[in-house]
Amino acid sequence: MNFTSKKLALLLVLLVAPFLVKGQTISSPDKNLSLKFELKNGVPSYELSYKGKPVIKPSKLGIEIKDAPSFMDGFTVKNTAQSTVDDSWNPIMGEERTIRNKYTELVVTLSQEKNNGRYINLKFRLFNDGLGFRYEFPKQKDLSYFIIKEEHTEFKLAGDHKIFWIPGDYDTNEYAYMTSKISEIPGLQKKATIEINAQQPIKNPSVQTPSMMKSADGLYINIHEAALINYPAMFLNVDTATMTFSSHLTPDAVGNKGYMQTEAQTPWRTIVVSDKATEILASKLILNLNEPTKYKDVSWIKPVKYIGVWWEYFVAGKSTWAYGTENNVKLSDDFSKLTPNGKHGATNERVMRYIDFAAANGFDGVLVEGWNVGWEDWIGNWKEEVFDFVTPYPDFDVVKLREYAKSKGVKIIMHHETSASVTNYERRLDRAFQYMKDNNYSSVKTGYVGTIIPRGEHHDGQSMVNHYIHVAERAADYQIMVNSHEAVRPTGLHRTFPNWFAQESARGTEFEAMGGLAPEHTTILPFTRLMGGPMDYTPGIFQTDLSYYKTGGNQRVNTTLAKQLAYYVTMYSPLQMAADLPENYERFPDAFQFIKDVALDWDHSYNLEAEPGDYITIARKAKGKNEWFVGGITDENSRTSSINFDYLPKGKKYIATIYADAKDANWNEKPQNYEIYNVVVTSKSKLKQYIAPGGGYAISIKEATDSELKGLKKL
Amino acid sequence: MNFTSKKLALLLVLLVAPFLVKGQTISSPDKNLSLKFELKNGVPSYELSYKGKPVIKPSKLGIEIKDAPSFMDGFTVKNTAQSTVDDSWNPIMGEERTIRNKYTELVVTLSQEKNNGRYINLKFRLFNDGLGFRYEFPKQKDLSYFIIKEEHTEFKLAGDHKIFWIPGDYDTNEYAYMTSKISEIPGLQKKATIEINAQQPIKNPSVQTPSMMKSADGLYINIHEAALINYPAMFLNVDTATMTFSSHLTPDAVGNKGYMQTEAQTPWRTIVVSDKATEILASKLILNLNEPTKYKDVSWIKPVKYIGVWWEYFVAGKSTWAYGTENNVKLSDDFSKLTPNGKHGATNERVMRYIDFAAANGFDGVLVEGWNVGWEDWIGNWKEEVFDFVTPYPDFDVVKLREYAKSKGVKIIMHHETSASVTNYERRLDRAFQYMKDNNYSSVKTGYVGTIIPRGEHHDGQSMVNHYIHVAERAADYQIMVNSHEAVRPTGLHRTFPNWFAQESARGTEFEAMGGLAPEHTTILPFTRLMGGPMDYTPGIFQTDLSYYKTGGNQRVNTTLAKQLAYYVTMYSPLQMAADLPENYERFPDAFQFIKDVALDWDHSYNLEAEPGDYITIARKAKGKNEWFVGGITDENSRTSSINFDYLPKGKKYIATIYADAKDANWNEKPQNYEIYNVVVTSKSKLKQYIAPGGGYAISIKEATDSELKGLKKL
Repeated sequence: MNFTSKKLALLLVLLVAPFLVKGQTISSPDKNLSLKFELKNGVPSYELSYKGKPVIKPSKLGIEIKDAPSFMDGFTVKNTAQSTVDDSWNPIMGEERTIRNKYTELVVTLSQEKNNGRYINLKFRLFNDGLGFRYEFPKQKDLSYFIIKEEHTEFKLAGDHKIFWIPGDYDTNEYAYMTSKISEIPGLQKKATIEINAQQPIKNPSVQTPSMMKSADGLYINIHEAALINYPAMFLNVDTATMTFSSHLTPDAVGNKGYMQTEAQTPWRTIVVSDKATEILASKLILNLNEPTKYKDVSWIKPVKYIGVWWEYFVAGKSTWAYGTENNVKLSDDFSKLTPNGKHGATNERVMRYIDFAAANGFDGVLVEGWNVGWEDWIGNWKEEVFDFVTPYPDFDVVKLREYAKSKGVKIIMHHETSASVTNYERRLDRAFQYMKDNNYSSVKTGYVGTIIPRGEHHDGQSMVNHYIHVAERAADYQIMVNSHEAVRPTGLHRTFPNWFAQESARGTEFEAMGGLAPEHTTILPFTRLMGGPMDYTPGIFQTDLSYYKTGGNQRVNTTLAKQLAYYVTMYSPLQMAADLPENYERFPDAFQFIKDVALDWDHSYNLEAEPGDYITIARKAKGKNEWFVGGITDENSRTSSINFDYLPKGKKYIATIYADAKDANWNEKPQNYEIYNVVVTSKSKLKQYIAPGGGYAISIKEATDSELKGLKKL
Repeated sequence: MNFTSKKLALLLVLLVAPFLVKGQTISSPDKNLSLKFELKNGVPSYELSYKGKPVIKPSKLGIEIKDAPSFMDGFTVKNTAQSTVDDSWNPIMGEERTIRNKYTELVVTLSQEKNNGRYINLKFRLFNDGLGFRYEFPKQKDLSYFIIKEEHTEFKLAGDHKIFWIPGDYDTNEYAYMTSKISEIPGLQKKATIEINAQQPIKNPSVQTPSMMKSADGLYINIHEAALINYPAMFLNVDTATMTFSSHLTPDAVGNKGYMQTEAQTPWRTIVVSDKATEILASKLILNLNEPTKYKDVSWIKPVKYIGVWWEYFVAGKSTWAYGTENNVKLSDDFSKLTPNGKHGATNERVMRYIDFAAANGFDGVLVEGWNVGWEDWIGNWKEEVFDFVTPYPDFDVVKLREYAKSKGVKIIMHHETSASVTNYERRLDRAFQYMKDNNYSSVKTGYVGTIIPRGEHHDGQSMVNHYIHVAERAADYQIMVNSHEAVRPTGLHRTFPNWFAQESARGTEFEAMGGLAPEHTTILPFTRLMGGPMDYTPGIFQTDLSYYKTGGNQRVNTTLAKQLAYYVTMYSPLQMAADLPENYERFPDAFQFIKDVALDWDHSYNLEAEPGDYITIARKAKGKNEWFVGGITDENSRTSSINFDYLPKGKKYIATIYADAKDANWNEKPQNYEIYNVVVTSKSKLKQYIAPGGGYAISIKEATDSELKGLKKL
């Protein structure tokens, strides 16, 4: 059993004559949140308040249908039902060993007499940390198939909030975050829409979700979606006249937005609310709204700490994905006949060097990109047959490396860059996974760089949403774990498909080598991208000044070295990379020790300090061990973090190793100046830790013998 | 070795200064055809004549490119080369044991100085029976990837010919043939565009290929294409002011027409010409322009004569593809829980009855449609996950039937209706074929009824053209033969992919149960659809009056019974169905004998009489046997066929069994009135055979002992 179910549901079915009941109100279990449903002139709406403050003002709900009557108006309330649930479950991997699932549910059945009594359900679940609701289309005589023209869900906000946002785009979520007032979005839309490969920006003012806001009176509000299955991803149109967001679904190649067959439902629309930023980070609402996995055996799903032949492609300039100098190749070519460019990265020698390093330092895996034929002209040509996923370059001996990795107890991680040619990938998928099993690979990094094939489809459309899940399910058949890059943003589906254990789906570390990331970037991501699920952010860059490499220009990774360590705690993922080159870790063995030590799976997490755009400090207890790890980061401003350790068992002394910025460190100058010191901590300890501009700190806390503790300063 | 290659090529490379050579003329080996290439003001054109008569008047050539300079003008002749080829090859199956491949070739290299000397080749091959030409795009520094906006190949005809045509449509070729003058096409376009499931008619006047014409002065002209690979299918725009056809390629979901990567080429554009209609039927030009197969082992590719659980779905009304009464099912449903409609066709009992009949009568296979879950709502909903191709209905026991068929020496033929959901089929293809192998199936009928998914793509577009070939190639990996229905019209690819051994791709027998086919229909098909390859026409309907079935209404198959026999000879295919119900064959065992006897593969074919739209008579010698079969058909008019037997070895006597319409037979009345009689024939025999309106006749000719011949009338 991978989850416990202790259902304490009290079902109150209220059957009331439709002409009497027009509105209904429910409260969250702690009574802080209140949801009101109302039907006005046949049009449904909802409103949400937190401790008496309006969060969402009365907002309409509706779905527009193509070539058939819509679910927009003419409704009567046919039935309402309330219930409460309080149970808990254990994720296979996660930030918490046990997740409480406690909510009040309201289901409103709305029928359209003008359309033969055709009906839908609106299902609301009100948790202590927010609201989830969705449209449900039960199987019924007069409703089997329909096509969605647009969803018209409104989120009428109560003020001109501060918002952390990226612009709406059907094909990419790799934008840099903007911070502004809602009213400023239209004016900033053009500036925000920086150039990204294969982008399709939405023309009207819009933002992507998770959308993180803060109201003038101190409410933190996060809008996203949960359980995005068989439906296009949702963007939010921005109407600054009324401070209203409204749903904008990703279209398909012919402009339709969703093909539905009853029984069907939309994803959950989620609104996480709190007056504490740390509670937003702690929310498990999105996970709770996803379905438990149907996988019977999950024993093969495990955290992975890895290194990879990867960062050198971005910075070192000395190696390339491609093997040949040619710029026009076909899969039918004999790649051993190409002219070697002399810089191919994924050679036997290089991979063996990585395997050795991984084995020596306790890593589970070695990602190898550029192992397979087709990289010479893989991008920008809307080419369908780019990769076959089963043919290595002539200098990558798959059998030799398989045996070598096996002998060292390390797994090579497969790379399936699809070049966004999804038709090509799907038709080869079974053979690609079989090839992985035959060669002892158990996890794959997928990539979707480029403009989608089938042509006209988008990364965030219904067909691609289904594709990513298809890959996860097929991979599960082969006991393969999936880490997708350039896929649609996550919505908690790692609960249902736990082998799809991480995604990129945001501007990750690679952009540090392509113009850099703002120092505040990683103080925003946990409030936005990570609300949906774990991110393969690929931290751990020690050599942040890229002019170190002859080919690196003046670029730099905009953090201190210590901040890179903190990411292993602040950026939750059961998949973590140490992204820098082995030779750089060998130059800083004491700092590298933290990466070697840090856990990937947790009993409990403590969100100690947080303000989106400014700082985050999180402590976590390693799963099944008396070990704790703390990560604290700041934006471009230095700060002093003030935390305590009251989560430690009382009355016991532990040794804490603190990896901190030196006083003279700065993301822009002396980023590699750090201090490492050991102190004794107890549950009563308090720490005031300086963090440099663009910096961070990391702490590992372990049990220790008295003699180990002897002579150490007590915190 | 499956083909012989006796190349007698004389290569004459003519390197001439571009400013001198602007035109060039070549002749067919027999000098009847003459092709002139010309470059006028930088624009290439060609003209074609037959015995001095113009066939194609000077017509422009060019390809329009998207977002880049086109290959339309600004050309200079960089090089020309002439050669002749005379060799032969043996198809694995076919109408001839050996095919002669004899032509004069002209290759013109055209460069565009304004575009850095970017160049293409125009390759012309002039055979005795017509012309093939194509555009070639060699690999070169400044030309790797490009997108075709439109091909502008003209066919300027010499007069207002009689033409047998169906209207241009990106998604279907199942139209009924129109016969008119070219000038009448625009006025008839609307009438010709009858309603067909999932059609996408071209708005401007256009026709499909193969397009069959007859000039006032007795020339037969057929325009089609050969080797349609990685390119969209071509339609012909019709300009009646100038009697000019011009190429119109099938667009993709975003309106583009072809994604090209050098080295690349268009399919061959083919013009078959003769002053004898029989020579059009005899032409092997299209096959010669296709590449030999690359398959190493072809021993598993064999002709198939089959029956099937099929016709009863159309006429008997007593059985259905679907098992349940529900009209909204999902693959995740438990189909054993559906409400049985009590009329499911593919039951164990029914299939065993068919297997028994097949075994008793020497058939190779039994097609079973409706064996797999999903038929309850398979059509009209643009549904993606219709079928999984591996889950039988509860009353179809795949293992039991596999063993039963094996014990009887019969193969069950798999049916993969895709509902045009190609994404769904491709991602399941490996598993579907593995399931076939596991259950002893060696051939599959595929179907593409509906509007294509990926949405926006078309049956005849580049991506679907590639899909059909992908299926053929993947099937070959599993030694599976493919018979595709609703696929793009064939272009001789059965030479290159010989396991793709038959297609429907035209209005076939099924339409006899849906309104009927004109009696002339099958006198046109061999001049149109069959020019590209074998057709699974599914002949053999004995019970032509469908009012025989309580549920058959007043419909009828518009032929006599004897004509159905003739089809086994006039409609060439190595795959032939006896489409009627076993019980109907049991009522007419003497006529059924012809279907049991007739061969599927041939040493030689003799096109004895032919006029498109009126009549066809063909004799063929069975491969490797001293057996001959003759088929003669007429349109709605009766006629007397006059043939001789001079293809028989001289001086020997054979017994001929003639299956002919009775004097009072008619497609519309007494269609089952036939006569069967035996006569003695020699190479000097002559036959005048009456054919009823909508009728036909069939003859089998075998060696016989003197005692068998004794007493028989000599022809």
